[in-house]
Amino acid sequence: MFGVTILGNNSALPAYDRHPTAQVITLNEQIFLIDCGEGTQMQLSRFKVRRGRINHIFISHLHGDHYFGLPGLITSMGLMGRDNELHIYAPAKLEEIIQLQLDVSGTALPFRLHFHILGDDAILVDNTKYTIESFRVFHRIDCWGFLIKEKKKPRRIDKDKAIAHEVPLAYYERLKNGDDYETRSGEVVKNEWVTTPNTPGKSYAYCADTKFDASIAARVKGVSMLYHETTYLKNLPERAFERFHSTTEQAAEIATLAQTQKLLIGHFSSKYEVLDEFLAEASAVFPNTDLALEGVTYLVP
Amino acid sequence: MFGVTILGNNSALPAYDRHPTAQVITLNEQIFLIDCGEGTQMQLSRFKVRRGRINHIFISHLHGDHYFGLPGLITSMGLMGRDNELHIYAPAKLEEIIQLQLDVSGTALPFRLHFHILGDDAILVDNTKYTIESFRVFHRIDCWGFLIKEKKKPRRIDKDKAIAHEVPLAYYERLKNGDDYETRSGEVVKNEWVTTPNTPGKSYAYCADTKFDASIAARVKGVSMLYHETTYLKNLPERAFERFHSTTEQAAEIATLAQTQKLLIGHFSSKYEVLDEFLAEASAVFPNTDLALEGVTYLVP
Repeated sequence: MFGVTILGNNSALPAYDRHPTAQVITLNEQIFLIDCGEGTQMQLSRFKVRRGRINHIFISHLHGDHYFGLPGLITSMGLMGRDNELHIYAPAKLEEIIQLQLDVSGTALPFRLHFHILGDDAILVDNTKYTIESFRVFHRIDCWGFLIKEKKKPRRIDKDKAIAHEVPLAYYERLKNGDDYETRSGEVVKNEWVTTPNTPGKSYAYCADTKFDASIAARVKGVSMLYHETTYLKNLPERAFERFHSTTEQAAEIATLAQTQKLLIGHFSSKYEVLDEFLAEASAVFPNTDLALEGVTYLVP
Repeated sequence: MFGVTILGNNSALPAYDRHPTAQVITLNEQIFLIDCGEGTQMQLSRFKVRRGRINHIFISHLHGDHYFGLPGLITSMGLMGRDNELHIYAPAKLEEIIQLQLDVSGTALPFRLHFHILGDDAILVDNTKYTIESFRVFHRIDCWGFLIKEKKKPRRIDKDKAIAHEVPLAYYERLKNGDDYETRSGEVVKNEWVTTPNTPGKSYAYCADTKFDASIAARVKGVSMLYHETTYLKNLPERAFERFHSTTEQAAEIATLAQTQKLLIGHFSSKYEVLDEFLAEASAVFPNTDLALEGVTYLVP
């Protein structure tokens, strides 16, 4: 399972029971939190996400609607007796803010907090199963998006064929990696004779708050699912530009350029009560678009 | 109208759709906010309190469940184009926290923010209609309660009688203040012959987070309505003491000692889903008790 659960889909001013930005990424057994607007801990409870399973939190930038829920979430994790380390990937100044708030409240957390500073094209997490990178987007203050990539899974061995070709068991790991096998007599057993391709790794890009910039599409090209903000409808491109935000059409154009399979749009301005037009306008340009609705999980295709 | 609307009645860990502490005090045309836990701006919307009318915010102490909603509320006020000055009465360090958060986000508020530091027995606001004082309570970190007192209204003039006694119009203001009138011939017109007493000023005390301490009752003696925390039921006095909180019985004892007309209890621990026992236990000691329920307005008697 690789999916995105929306906790908050609104821009800065909460409205119409829409909340500031927060998303939970589920990747098999892992849960990641991306951004943490005010009320995220309540939204986690509301949508029955177990906060104890969150070990990595990614904060795109230091506008409050993307992190004002973090001090409360951290404090609550402490009150619940968490002892797992918590990793926070964020702009540099966040550590100072959190530390000041812990200090004035006399709070000693029962778990370790690790801060990691975001960078342009930085690899934040890299293990055998996935990588998470940050990449620059174009907002009024320093802001980064995140790209989560499942690693391409190893090839599947067709055991009957491998035995028929007399490939020794000890060589199976190399087969999974795509290597050919050479017998003692020098005969080459082509990898594809004895293995089949596995599912390709899926990927998800979160483009945070940004104005339209085609370089983002290039950066995340071929991503399976793309989240792009659409603060405004298409008739307000000047306002979007001035405020370093995007319109529906611009998000859909990024999705088209990035050749993604699916576009998810969110960060709706509180000037809009109804969201139908967002979906209609974006879908007109990029058909496989979904509104990011709170409490809904969108599977990465 | 002098009343208290509860926005959040829970202790630190939000649970069962109960929110961290926040209360709105309505005193005629004035609205004050006391404490501002995470999500307060959403609760203000939910209960249709117009945030633009809030000009004074009081923060009892710097545990996050009493102020983590403040940066978001201030930022949203700015986004909504507020231009009225906003006064914040809080422990000294709050200004540094808010300023740091505004700085990192590059936010220039369109209104002036004034910070006032709380003190023991400090008069925070004093005008012709009411006073607001802070007084020390007894929590793990520095913490203050707030006492809001309507000023005793002037006496009401019985116009027919005043005319019959030939009191000149120019003297009516002194009549309202309770003065007698002496005629030119030296005859004394007793104030009570020509005026009637007005409603006595009402008062409300918010005792924040505190362990049981009888000095609080002495400090707010005779207050019309008293809010006192009851984090725990009466069977956990040791836990309450260790954590600088109070039980139902302790809150009710403070109400009895303070000779208040009405007790409001809140700050319920998230270990309790149902609140019936809180009301039963406190009422057994102090009958005129109400649970502080979110969205409900309690009139000061």
